[in-house]
Amino acid sequence: MPLGLTIQSRSHSYTVEGFPSLGAALETISQPERAHYLVDRNLMELYPSELASVLPETRTVVLDATEEQKSYDAIAPVFLQFIEKGLKRDGNLVVVGGGVMQDIGCFIATTLARGIHWELIPTTLLSQADSCIGSKSSINIGAFKNQIGSFYAPHRVLMAHAVLGTLPWDQIRSGMGEILKLALLTSPSEFQELSSDLAGFAGETPMIEKWVSRALGIKKKFIEEDEFDRGRRNLLNYGHTFGHAFESATQYGIPHGIAVSLGMLAATFTSASMGMVSWEHYHGVKEKLVPWFTPYHRMLSRASGEVILQAMLHDKKNSSAGVTCILTRGFGTMEKRPLDAEKELKPCLDAFLSSELANI
Amino acid sequence: MPLGLTIQSRSHSYTVEGFPSLGAALETISQPERAHYLVDRNLMELYPSELASVLPETRTVVLDATEEQKSYDAIAPVFLQFIEKGLKRDGNLVVVGGGVMQDIGCFIATTLARGIHWELIPTTLLSQADSCIGSKSSINIGAFKNQIGSFYAPHRVLMAHAVLGTLPWDQIRSGMGEILKLALLTSPSEFQELSSDLAGFAGETPMIEKWVSRALGIKKKFIEEDEFDRGRRNLLNYGHTFGHAFESATQYGIPHGIAVSLGMLAATFTSASMGMVSWEHYHGVKEKLVPWFTPYHRMLSRASGEVILQAMLHDKKNSSAGVTCILTRGFGTMEKRPLDAEKELKPCLDAFLSSELANI
Repeated sequence: MPLGLTIQSRSHSYTVEGFPSLGAALETISQPERAHYLVDRNLMELYPSELASVLPETRTVVLDATEEQKSYDAIAPVFLQFIEKGLKRDGNLVVVGGGVMQDIGCFIATTLARGIHWELIPTTLLSQADSCIGSKSSINIGAFKNQIGSFYAPHRVLMAHAVLGTLPWDQIRSGMGEILKLALLTSPSEFQELSSDLAGFAGETPMIEKWVSRALGIKKKFIEEDEFDRGRRNLLNYGHTFGHAFESATQYGIPHGIAVSLGMLAATFTSASMGMVSWEHYHGVKEKLVPWFTPYHRMLSRASGEVILQAMLHDKKNSSAGVTCILTRGFGTMEKRPLDAEKELKPCLDAFLSSELANI
Repeated sequence: MPLGLTIQSRSHSYTVEGFPSLGAALETISQPERAHYLVDRNLMELYPSELASVLPETRTVVLDATEEQKSYDAIAPVFLQFIEKGLKRDGNLVVVGGGVMQDIGCFIATTLARGIHWELIPTTLLSQADSCIGSKSSINIGAFKNQIGSFYAPHRVLMAHAVLGTLPWDQIRSGMGEILKLALLTSPSEFQELSSDLAGFAGETPMIEKWVSRALGIKKKFIEEDEFDRGRRNLLNYGHTFGHAFESATQYGIPHGIAVSLGMLAATFTSASMGMVSWEHYHGVKEKLVPWFTPYHRMLSRASGEVILQAMLHDKKNSSAGVTCILTRGFGTMEKRPLDAEKELKPCLDAFLSSELANI
């Protein structure tokens, strides 16, 4: 497999290793006698012979991978279950699931006994191609989304692309949103190669392996240079200020990575409207993005522009200078810009929602 | 003032600065326009002109400094208050209080927006002489004490010894327990000098300034060498395995540092019983420790040995090899040893409780 990546983080370096199956990955877990498992309930049902019949019940916690579960209050009983099951500072927390399970597991591994060893088996394309490296966790509290969290990388990432075979197509498209983003952040040739590989793609494993590996290689450079998101790593939020607001305004009816594709379209539209990039560039990108979000743009065109604007105004990355957006001057040349909500952002957003999306 | 210490931690280095008063310290807070304050309710009442009438109500949260407040569940509303008051990732959380407030503040600063700048004004002798450096936070969850936490140093420690003037004598003795421990960890001459300074000490500021500075200087070496408590820093737990169990078995009726003094006596007794150190050494140390714990040893001699043993068996620092104790071979030569609970620990503990303490 084209993996075997090593990532540097402040607390430790860690590896991304490839395996033929979930079962094969689980067989290599470190210190298995001291391992505890946090597993997405769906996976327990999908992989009875690799999970349910193998994992020790006395050291396994099974959760629903929902936004509600990913909250500070809902995590308290999970901490207690692991403490009661005997997970200690010399233990190993093995997390099996997608982004939500990763957030919960990372937060527990960060704060249980002031930080324990943990290993991650990402099982969605979104988590394999993007979130599994970079150390971040995000936890909701009260009505506030993702306000709590940590930077604490897993000690190993164990990946089995085979599990992607059971994912619904929208989950594949969601992961593809982040892969498209990483290609857009790189160069015209990277985006061109991805676009041409994606023509006719229907979830084939070799293509996924290639682009998961490429995406992680691109992201590695950003996170190693700026693990704590103080500078260049900000650019990885391309499409995310819009995307998060789109998710929020549709009550999370749009899968995350698909909202990011729509968000990148909105950011490119805004960049073109402000004269930062040509309309030709915009239309070229749009043509390639459309298959990865349609027909979710219709859900968005029915949403209230005012609600989306309000959600953007509450983005946690804003500063006093305005709504923080990552805009573009072309492939590989993104730029962080605070936009005045009323004067700059609102007109672009209104035009994007009312005329642009309606014509796709 | 004999301060001006700089401490290295993995995430950043930080300073310990001395000020003539609480008010003077607060005047130098970084980025005051973005500062939010977490303050012990007692201090608000004790220092109305320096705190209550100065701190902006819209950016201040006042708490009771209790063990109940220092729990995962009870901290949730504190997070929400700060988020609602507008504390963001570019803010500054200023924590004013003793160890409990430090634990709560450090945990919030660690996990709000994945870690924000925070500054600490320690107001007890225990926090000034010991806990204010070293990065640790400890939070209770459910029935489990200190199982959640983090390593995340403040960005500045601002110290005003003047606030110690309002502390009850037992609070001074509690802080002195940790100072005695740090002297015992160093050398015969360090312990001798402290003992001689303490003869006749009644809380005078110059002596406190001298020994706070000395204690922090000793602790600095341990924590800079081993911030994450994987090796040499373990020795700072001298007296603590016994001490924590003494606190727990008396329902926290013994102040922490006083329990540590009793714990050091128990550890020295155990070391002597096991032939690691002479009885002469034990009696020399005992003579100096007695004024710093009496009459709390009577509370302990009435407690159940079985309850204490059970508490030690549940210490989070234990390994599968037994109850982890720091024992001693003399001044400055402590040693981490796992003790078999029934064969090694119980006989020593029984003798200590039933015959040794009863004769003080």
